Amino acid sequence: MTSFPLLQTINDPADLRKLSRADLKQLATELRAFVIESVSQTGGHLSSNLGTVELTVALHHVFHTPEDRLVWDVGHQTYPHKILTGRRDRMHTLRQLGGISGFPQRAESVYDTFGTAHSSTSISAALGMALAAQRKGEERHAVAIIGDGAMTAGMAFEALNNAGVADANLLVILNDNDMSISPPVGALNRYLAQLMSGQFYAAAKNVGKSVLKNAPPLLELAKRLEQQAKGMVVPATLFEKFGFNYIGPIDGHDLDSLIPTLENIKGLKGPQFLHVVTKKGQGYKLAEADPVAYHGPGKFDPAVGLVKSAAVPKQTFTQVFGEWLCDMAAQDDRLVGITPAMREGSGMVEFEKRFPGRYYDVGIAEQHAITFAAGMACEGVKPVVAIYSTFLQRGYDQMIHDVALQNLPVVFALDRAGLVGADGATHAGAYDIPFVRCIPHMSMACPADERECRQLLSTAFEQDHPVAVRYPRGSGAGVPTLRGLEGLPFGKGEIRRERQAGEAAAGTPRIAILAFGTLLYPALQAAEALDVTVVNMRWAKPLDTELLLEVAARHDALVTLEEGAIMGGAGSAVLEALAAAKVVLPVLQLGLPDAFIEHGDPGKLLSLQGLDAAGIQASIARRFPA
Amino acid sequence: MTSFPLLQTINDPADLRKLSRADLKQLATELRAFVIESVSQTGGHLSSNLGTVELTVALHHVFHTPEDRLVWDVGHQTYPHKILTGRRDRMHTLRQLGGISGFPQRAESVYDTFGTAHSSTSISAALGMALAAQRKGEERHAVAIIGDGAMTAGMAFEALNNAGVADANLLVILNDNDMSISPPVGALNRYLAQLMSGQFYAAAKNVGKSVLKNAPPLLELAKRLEQQAKGMVVPATLFEKFGFNYIGPIDGHDLDSLIPTLENIKGLKGPQFLHVVTKKGQGYKLAEADPVAYHGPGKFDPAVGLVKSAAVPKQTFTQVFGEWLCDMAAQDDRLVGITPAMREGSGMVEFEKRFPGRYYDVGIAEQHAITFAAGMACEGVKPVVAIYSTFLQRGYDQMIHDVALQNLPVVFALDRAGLVGADGATHAGAYDIPFVRCIPHMSMACPADERECRQLLSTAFEQDHPVAVRYPRGSGAGVPTLRGLEGLPFGKGEIRRERQAGEAAAGTPRIAILAFGTLLYPALQAAEALDVTVVNMRWAKPLDTELLLEVAARHDALVTLEEGAIMGGAGSAVLEALAAAKVVLPVLQLGLPDAFIEHGDPGKLLSLQGLDAAGIQASIARRFPA
Repeated sequence: MTSFPLLQTINDPADLRKLSRADLKQLATELRAFVIESVSQTGGHLSSNLGTVELTVALHHVFHTPEDRLVWDVGHQTYPHKILTGRRDRMHTLRQLGGISGFPQRAESVYDTFGTAHSSTSISAALGMALAAQRKGEERHAVAIIGDGAMTAGMAFEALNNAGVADANLLVILNDNDMSISPPVGALNRYLAQLMSGQFYAAAKNVGKSVLKNAPPLLELAKRLEQQAKGMVVPATLFEKFGFNYIGPIDGHDLDSLIPTLENIKGLKGPQFLHVVTKKGQGYKLAEADPVAYHGPGKFDPAVGLVKSAAVPKQTFTQVFGEWLCDMAAQDDRLVGITPAMREGSGMVEFEKRFPGRYYDVGIAEQHAITFAAGMACEGVKPVVAIYSTFLQRGYDQMIHDVALQNLPVVFALDRAGLVGADGATHAGAYDIPFVRCIPHMSMACPADERECRQLLSTAFEQDHPVAVRYPRGSGAGVPTLRGLEGLPFGKGEIRRERQAGEAAAGTPRIAILAFGTLLYPALQAAEALDVTVVNMRWAKPLDTELLLEVAARHDALVTLEEGAIMGGAGSAVLEALAAAKVVLPVLQLGLPDAFIEHGDPGKLLSLQGLDAAGIQASIARRFPA
Repeated sequence: MTSFPLLQTINDPADLRKLSRADLKQLATELRAFVIESVSQTGGHLSSNLGTVELTVALHHVFHTPEDRLVWDVGHQTYPHKILTGRRDRMHTLRQLGGISGFPQRAESVYDTFGTAHSSTSISAALGMALAAQRKGEERHAVAIIGDGAMTAGMAFEALNNAGVADANLLVILNDNDMSISPPVGALNRYLAQLMSGQFYAAAKNVGKSVLKNAPPLLELAKRLEQQAKGMVVPATLFEKFGFNYIGPIDGHDLDSLIPTLENIKGLKGPQFLHVVTKKGQGYKLAEADPVAYHGPGKFDPAVGLVKSAAVPKQTFTQVFGEWLCDMAAQDDRLVGITPAMREGSGMVEFEKRFPGRYYDVGIAEQHAITFAAGMACEGVKPVVAIYSTFLQRGYDQMIHDVALQNLPVVFALDRAGLVGADGATHAGAYDIPFVRCIPHMSMACPADERECRQLLSTAFEQDHPVAVRYPRGSGAGVPTLRGLEGLPFGKGEIRRERQAGEAAAGTPRIAILAFGTLLYPALQAAEALDVTVVNMRWAKPLDTELLLEVAARHDALVTLEEGAIMGGAGSAVLEALAAAKVVLPVLQLGLPDAFIEHGDPGKLLSLQGLDAAGIQASIARRFPA
């Protein structure tokens, strides 16, 4: 273990507020080393946290936290913040079951004023806090720290638009590292690059402002000419048009810039906008060179860096999707792929390489992504929108109003359906079955394994109406995909295992498990012990009612199983279909409970929810004793 | 009937493309008169349509529709467009059952290239169309026409950000009438007002541009000085920062400006932004004077204008909410009211008047509205977010990720739950029960009448966790509200009618209707004829399981009833609870089917869905014959 003499003395931001500038610099150095050592042991986000070391030190030094509110957008850059706010000794538990979260959480610390994880919420939340403080007559500052990627989302703009006219002590800090997870796209990023291109200087700007203040028009003109001659007139920035006082850009790794600037801003009234330039991966050469690879690494040796594992890893569903996308694109010229800034996470790197003209990264903009797809679908192009289940929540209205209502053939490839592991409750894809299946015209497939995932994507693509295909994070049962692009029948399930015993001779109830998705495999294991029928339902909507009723007719009880919320989920679709068909039968619903489930190892989490083979077996045996 | 000699000859935009400028002006005059006469007879949107008469004529004259794509944002300003595209003779059926829609609909006309109604989708859709055309090698234009109110929504910004770097033949026309439904708010609107304040002129700007083009720095400085002296230097607009070529502002009621400008733009490549200034209600003095009142009037005499009805109308749920909000605000200083630009529609006019400092209109910005509320709730302020059920779809992720996950006490007052009548499928509040109840920590009340609505709002406000209260458009059973602010018990229903007959002597099944919301009243009517028990369930979540099981224990069958989607709805919550309690009983689910339901009279629509007293009675008798 490296030693961290100064860092060890900081158990609260109050401690660091006493430090001299020189000590703060030393603290930043130790903090950076601690982050690298800590993340190398636990895995987690790295590049972004190396980028916020000095900013975090400066913010806690200048502002009186926790009375002043810091809202960290996305929040995956808050490890330095966590380390400085009393959680240094818990960093080794990061993102593990029972350990601290990889994101800010109100329940974890008073310094985590607002839970974040999905991007672009910070300005809205901080504005709410600022106006609430104003209402209550409390003198406090509210600070939102937001990246340039997060800034492209519509809700950040909605918040700027609202904040710019609000009389609030709000400071928005743009942490501009020219990097969302995927490379930056869009006009805003291009504009920010221009801001940094040399024609804009904070110093010059401030001089210009003070000189020109209250000058009469003619005098102003003369002054302006003079300024212009010196190259010092700076056109108003975008952010000033929104009513903010723009300051920057300044170097976000230089405490000698950060601290005095923040101290000055602290005295200003009204909405302030500080443009800070940082570098993802700052101070760790390997991460600086490849911030994407070091965005969220697993464990590694800091001296060596990331090493490609020799073991061939199991194919992930994300990879299955990526391969299918390329293969289908090669076969069908109408296909285009759309991602809201998730090229890597959604498995579209290869697709972009091979079909650059058919790849659309629209930025962190789920709403736009879906309506953009709808517009394309109107013209006979066939869009595949790759989006995490949890992020589809951001484009829900667009799915309803623009895609489903017009019955447009858009394929939604929903990655990260179900529990997601280390990212925790904020990213859980637990609600998509209820919120998608209640929408007319929508269909939803739940592939049980890798092979079916590819097949059902093909089925989805063949339809002339919208279809969502949901698949979990990571790998599944490991069933190899077939090379072809044949689909499976639309809306049809299959019986995977028949109960072996005959009539319920010994009074044993005849039970059938109806599995939706990858939990089919633990169900099959449980079925061996229990001797029950197992049905691979495959489609949450349309439900294979024919198959369901056939199975219901010759069983005494049914068990529904899904990696998703029980409330309103696929199991409830079964209940609805039985009720509509006047079939009265005991049903046990297995799935995710009505609770937010924290971060941890995905397998262990499923097991805790009773959704592994042993748990399924136990639940069935308890509900339907032999 | 006024006569419309020229308009009568226009059955297709091709007809108007042959007209001279003078004839086009005559056509516009007739078109305006036709709109006034038509809307006065059917009701519908007026102010906005009077504002788009000349723009519509000019667009169809200059562009080759339908090959060139016009996407009208929101779409309530498309009556002139409908009249000119073959639907003149069907305008008398507007917004009526079986008649034409008040919004563009792809199924209605090839000229309606994209169905709209919710705001701010047009740029995304048009960009999709433009890039699809590019992919297919088709030379066509895509034009989005968007109001300044709609421009404040995040998704419009997401689309601009994406479009500004796209190499697409996209024209965005900002129809700037300084009016969303409520008065404009936010920095963007303030900025647009500055653009029109006299310091910006299109002509000057264009001169400036061509003069300065390619000028070397020193020469440029000299030129700039010269321009400045003439007051002609125009800073780059916001839209140029997004990569658009900005043209405007021009007078949107002057065909002599509109037509040549559009013709010029037609020849330009890349993303173009035309700023058009129009006046809502233009050409009809009464509407010009009060565009809010004439935004969506009922029938009226054009010569007289709107007349206050002598009959005292029944109190609407919107009014019940508005009164409750004021009364609770007077009692509890912590209450604040938040609306995404729906002051009138949500019944907050009086609240703003009485509590201006506690009223927050955040613009058309549902995402921001909800996270802003979450931020306030963190500080001990108690926000009430008034939002239509259909617009909550826009803030779904924020409800999950920012409010529910943090279990913050935010009240969601969901107006327009269920069918909405003339606005049709786009505005249906049919999905809120499924999409809200699957989210942990969320609760949802479904008041049966006006009195309960007020009481349950109080109950919601008392909780320290998030609660949604859903109530329909218009009025209910007419049960007068009580003046006090006492709530009803949280999560508890009540039996409203007991079956009269004793044991199922004559073999008649003992049936109980479980009603969620205002359909309780037709259920009570049906119950008289059928002699069944009626339960007012009141809460979709938490379900009153105790009451449910008590009722289930002494009945042979249950009927669930709700004005919302059956799939995943409150009836399914009943099925889930029964299954969990091992109660096996026949259940009939009544509610909205898995289909989009078109516009029409709300009562008639409910009746067509079998959700009036007669329909409920018939469904029960059919399913459970005596």
